[in-house]
Amino acid sequence: MTTTTATIEAPAPKKMPVPRNGVDTPKLFATIAAVGDQPPLAEFRFRAESRWVKGTHSRSAMSGFYGAGGEMKHRAAFEADSDHPGVLCGEDQGPTPVEWVLHALAACLTAGIANIAAARGVTLESVECSVEGDIDLQGILGLSDKVRNGFRAIRVGFQVKGDAPAEKLRQIVEQSRARSAVFDILTNGVPVAIAVDAA
Amino acid sequence: MTTTTATIEAPAPKKMPVPRNGVDTPKLFATIAAVGDQPPLAEFRFRAESRWVKGTHSRSAMSGFYGAGGEMKHRAAFEADSDHPGVLCGEDQGPTPVEWVLHALAACLTAGIANIAAARGVTLESVECSVEGDIDLQGILGLSDKVRNGFRAIRVGFQVKGDAPAEKLRQIVEQSRARSAVFDILTNGVPVAIAVDAA
Repeated sequence: MTTTTATIEAPAPKKMPVPRNGVDTPKLFATIAAVGDQPPLAEFRFRAESRWVKGTHSRSAMSGFYGAGGEMKHRAAFEADSDHPGVLCGEDQGPTPVEWVLHALAACLTAGIANIAAARGVTLESVECSVEGDIDLQGILGLSDKVRNGFRAIRVGFQVKGDAPAEKLRQIVEQSRARSAVFDILTNGVPVAIAVDAA
Repeated sequence: MTTTTATIEAPAPKKMPVPRNGVDTPKLFATIAAVGDQPPLAEFRFRAESRWVKGTHSRSAMSGFYGAGGEMKHRAAFEADSDHPGVLCGEDQGPTPVEWVLHALAACLTAGIANIAAARGVTLESVECSVEGDIDLQGILGLSDKVRNGFRAIRVGFQVKGDAPAEKLRQIVEQSRARSAVFDILTNGVPVAIAVDAA
């Protein structure tokens, strides 16, 4: 009887995760399991060390961070410049600070999309992201107390291509949003403390 | 009589702003005055265009923006990479998205310090900034719904040297904080809308 046969069959084996989209999916799953077993491994502290160059130009280095229970080093000491453009009295030696924020958001959501697609067995063909932010500089220029200093709105547009139906690709983007560190930081805010050593 | 003499004296001329700290202070003051006269010039829209490379690695370009009443181009199309480090299953091809947020904050506050010091006639010798952010990755790894995805706290430390008393240097940092776009974005949050074109 087919019913009996069905009851003695072993349950269908879980699909084993395989590397996909350049994501080492088995390692990703193992990492999540390891952190689940030892939550203190999840405590990270990231850093940037910045030095003023001239005018509105500064340069940051991002080389070390704490995480997974110990002090870590990046493969290289990454450096990045920031400046204001000529129209804002800078020398345009790098993107503005607010453009770096948009870059961070695009990067965070995109990394999440690749990871989640791999975990769900979806192979991506391409992911493109446009981010824009609206800002009224009357705030930072001190011309109005009614205008906030930062962006009043940010819009993100994704173009995602992969071997899954459009609805499934959209769900992957939504899950990335729901678990994005930078999306959370930007939409919910973070307490920032500033200490000054002046001489 | 000294009193009479005093009354016929012209008022002390305002100190003319001079370039300082690499800041074109006269141009900065003229820009603020021009925007004060024509507030629509203060409307800016900044952008980042990002493309997924592989795994958690993506690359953004920041080349054009709208502002001062027209479309602008940076001196160069700036590019930047982002990735996760090996311990987070990436290939460490660039700083993490959250480190880019810290870089943006340092850069914004530092640019403000240089501008404000120039406006107040203070010559800076050096400005160094260390930023760190604490994050519990149980959020983004989906291991806990009680842990937020982003930083729970950010700390900024400035070392500022210049030709003014420590208290005046501290006031310059405080004014930079009070008019910083990125500080406002991070502490007060911004609405972020995400649209997806999937195929």
